[in-house]
Amino acid sequence: MSEPENSDWAKPSSREVGGGGSETVIDADTARHDPQTAVTVAKIKALRQSIDNVDTAIVSLLAERFKYTSQVGVLKARAGFAPADYKREDYQIERLHRIAIDAGLDPDIAEMYREFVVAEAKKRHQRIADAGGDPGVLDVFA
Amino acid sequence: MSEPENSDWAKPSSREVGGGGSETVIDADTARHDPQTAVTVAKIKALRQSIDNVDTAIVSLLAERFKYTSQVGVLKARAGFAPADYKREDYQIERLHRIAIDAGLDPDIAEMYREFVVAEAKKRHQRIADAGGDPGVLDVFA
Repeated sequence: MSEPENSDWAKPSSREVGGGGSETVIDADTARHDPQTAVTVAKIKALRQSIDNVDTAIVSLLAERFKYTSQVGVLKARAGFAPADYKREDYQIERLHRIAIDAGLDPDIAEMYREFVVAEAKKRHQRIADAGGDPGVLDVFA
Repeated sequence: MSEPENSDWAKPSSREVGGGGSETVIDADTARHDPQTAVTVAKIKALRQSIDNVDTAIVSLLAERFKYTSQVGVLKARAGFAPADYKREDYQIERLHRIAIDAGLDPDIAEMYREFVVAEAKKRHQRIADAGGDPGVLDVFA
């Protein structure tokens, strides 16, 4: 990552960090540089608070999602259903593509999200098994 | 994935699929097997609707998150700030760990989520550049 060019503003001092890159810490020191920089720092801080709020919501929703998929896994195992359900998977792929477009999100990212939750379910299952515990039912098609 | 053992219920017929595995499609055909299976199918369908609602919320939130991080990237570039801000990254790692525990989510999954959004931001940037477009500002530290 190179530094952005064509800056029409004075650059605040960036601290050199390992690997030859540099960083700009968005804090009071940076804001003190000049009034225009202070406005930018305030805007970035406000956006970061929104990003943090989004992350809180997503982490909370992921916690609920794993609870639901565990329940589906237990129900399927008790009923003797196979974990796989490719019709469900196809439905989810098509659905996430559609809602991503509606939301203004690159549909490739929505598909990567789906693959992420599937991969995490698999890893979580393996971690519990490796630790000698009962990993329960692995159901990535919930 | 092997089929679960110790099923105390009659198994509905599973369809053989490629790779030697089998699947159970949760649908009206499966529910018709017996009344107890019908109850399980209804429960799974209800849970799947909740999973789909969670996914709709997460995809919508991811769309907003990428909009916010793009704005931070533009602000940093205009101000001549470096993209990197390791203090911010450390803060996010610690924060996501904490809120995951509060939410009942494995903190490793929260960290994987953070790495997922960072990786997707990088890939998205590369895709736009490869397509000959202006990828804008890559800012994975937003």
